[in-house]
Amino acid sequence: MPASKDRYAYLGPAATFTEAAARRLHAVAGAELEPYSTVHAAIDAVRTGDVAGAVVPLENSVEGSVNATLDDLIRGEPVMIVAEHLLPVTFSLMARSGTELTGVRKVVTHPVAEAQCRSWMSKALPDAVTAVTSSTAAAAAAVSARTHDTDGELFDAAIAAPIAAEHYGLDTLADDIGDNKEALTRFVLITQPGRPPRATGSDKTSLVAYIRDDHPGALLEILEQFATRGVNLTRIESRPTGNGMGRYCFVIDAEGHLNDARVGEALMGLRRVCADVRFLGSYARADGVRPPVGRGMTNAEFNDAAVWLDSLRDG
Amino acid sequence: MPASKDRYAYLGPAATFTEAAARRLHAVAGAELEPYSTVHAAIDAVRTGDVAGAVVPLENSVEGSVNATLDDLIRGEPVMIVAEHLLPVTFSLMARSGTELTGVRKVVTHPVAEAQCRSWMSKALPDAVTAVTSSTAAAAAAVSARTHDTDGELFDAAIAAPIAAEHYGLDTLADDIGDNKEALTRFVLITQPGRPPRATGSDKTSLVAYIRDDHPGALLEILEQFATRGVNLTRIESRPTGNGMGRYCFVIDAEGHLNDARVGEALMGLRRVCADVRFLGSYARADGVRPPVGRGMTNAEFNDAAVWLDSLRDG
Repeated sequence: MPASKDRYAYLGPAATFTEAAARRLHAVAGAELEPYSTVHAAIDAVRTGDVAGAVVPLENSVEGSVNATLDDLIRGEPVMIVAEHLLPVTFSLMARSGTELTGVRKVVTHPVAEAQCRSWMSKALPDAVTAVTSSTAAAAAAVSARTHDTDGELFDAAIAAPIAAEHYGLDTLADDIGDNKEALTRFVLITQPGRPPRATGSDKTSLVAYIRDDHPGALLEILEQFATRGVNLTRIESRPTGNGMGRYCFVIDAEGHLNDARVGEALMGLRRVCADVRFLGSYARADGVRPPVGRGMTNAEFNDAAVWLDSLRDG
Repeated sequence: MPASKDRYAYLGPAATFTEAAARRLHAVAGAELEPYSTVHAAIDAVRTGDVAGAVVPLENSVEGSVNATLDDLIRGEPVMIVAEHLLPVTFSLMARSGTELTGVRKVVTHPVAEAQCRSWMSKALPDAVTAVTSSTAAAAAAVSARTHDTDGELFDAAIAAPIAAEHYGLDTLADDIGDNKEALTRFVLITQPGRPPRATGSDKTSLVAYIRDDHPGALLEILEQFATRGVNLTRIESRPTGNGMGRYCFVIDAEGHLNDARVGEALMGLRRVCADVRFLGSYARADGVRPPVGRGMTNAEFNDAAVWLDSLRDG
């Protein structure tokens, strides 16, 4: 077995979008990839040191966040995001050889894929029933293996990634059946906590802010910590912490790097007003956007202000 | 002539509220006091080193700010406030011996005193005309000296501080004639810039924030810098900077001391988002109020957050 530093986990099975994303991540290129059956298992392999990192889906531009990943990041032992990848998502309908589109009565797929192909399905297969499984690849495998559903019926077709057809020996009945032709899934590479990758000028910082008590204005208080330092957010989502009803946290992606003065000061502000803050990582943005830094918010301006304050205090 | 460190300027003439305030300021006790004819002249004597400090009125609880003082602090060479004093203001109507209240036709006083006695005047002397002069003491002096107004008429009575009657040999016709029995005037002791007096736990910090361009949201941007750090303001007032139409600044009093972490960070924030920030001083509050420091805003919490950020950056 190779050393853990050369092995990476990903959310399996093979031939899913996650494997495709993992193969495109620079940090993972050339390493051994090992599929894990759940997001939690993949991330836990990072925690135990069995693998150097794990590639898991975090967010889907149509369906929103992948809750299993979010909740593991929120509730599990701390880990760190060191890279992200955006993968265009295209779906195919695939079946065993000889199946006609008109003969498809029972379709199986992953819930996210089901949601993303709903419009096409309602037009092309209005009478078909759709069952869900743990991955698009598992759906293709179930069709390939002639698996029966709980009613004892065969699955006629699967909605899956195009490469799954080849992998599982299925015929493609229809290509590119997703409703949103610009659908993207965001994958992240997770490692053990450590010093973040260095700033590139096009960076994102992810964190979890656990609110202190549940009081009106708690979210505004958090947003102010960013706004006052000119730190723009690209995403915010509330999630239960799992520690009891009514206890929420916010998963936040902010523009900029931990080492940027404005981001650092915003994080210190959160640390003071929140019950807890979990830093999830600073890493290069997959979209390569380099947003302009607001007036008064550059590292040089922060430094100038600190020098000025010192001079006032010294008299 | 004594060394400048033992001499203090105040807004004269003698026997005004300003002299009374100066005599109660601990820092000035026992020093030689010298009246100056204008606020600007008194503060300029500080700038040139002729005096160790100057006591001038800054704010009146009825009439608002004393614009001459504000504008000198905003536009003149930088100076620093090192102490404040709140003086209850009571007014008397005084006249030359033999004058009856019913015979008073022409009254003279300072504009602030005129505004503060308007209600009493309209009832007691509805037909009297009121002229204004540079100080309440000057008004008493004008009555005492039988000065004529521009129409060649004598001033019959003056509204002035009670002690002015004795000082100028006048009889008091009516005592405590101010409309607001809780009227206070706030006086400040001004020195050359230097290291501020040390924090007492009941402190105030004054500053001028000069806005950068005149854009919607400029004031909100300034207020956010304080709110985000839990720094409460006790006073804010916009004033023209005198550098052209439409160019404004805000004169601000905030709770806390320059050496408090929350105040320091708010000032650094202002420094970054404003065209300029002039620190006017941190000094003990005259009202002795020790407001509770907001949750997450103590020096210990700021220090904890900085240690935490360092640990994240170090990985």
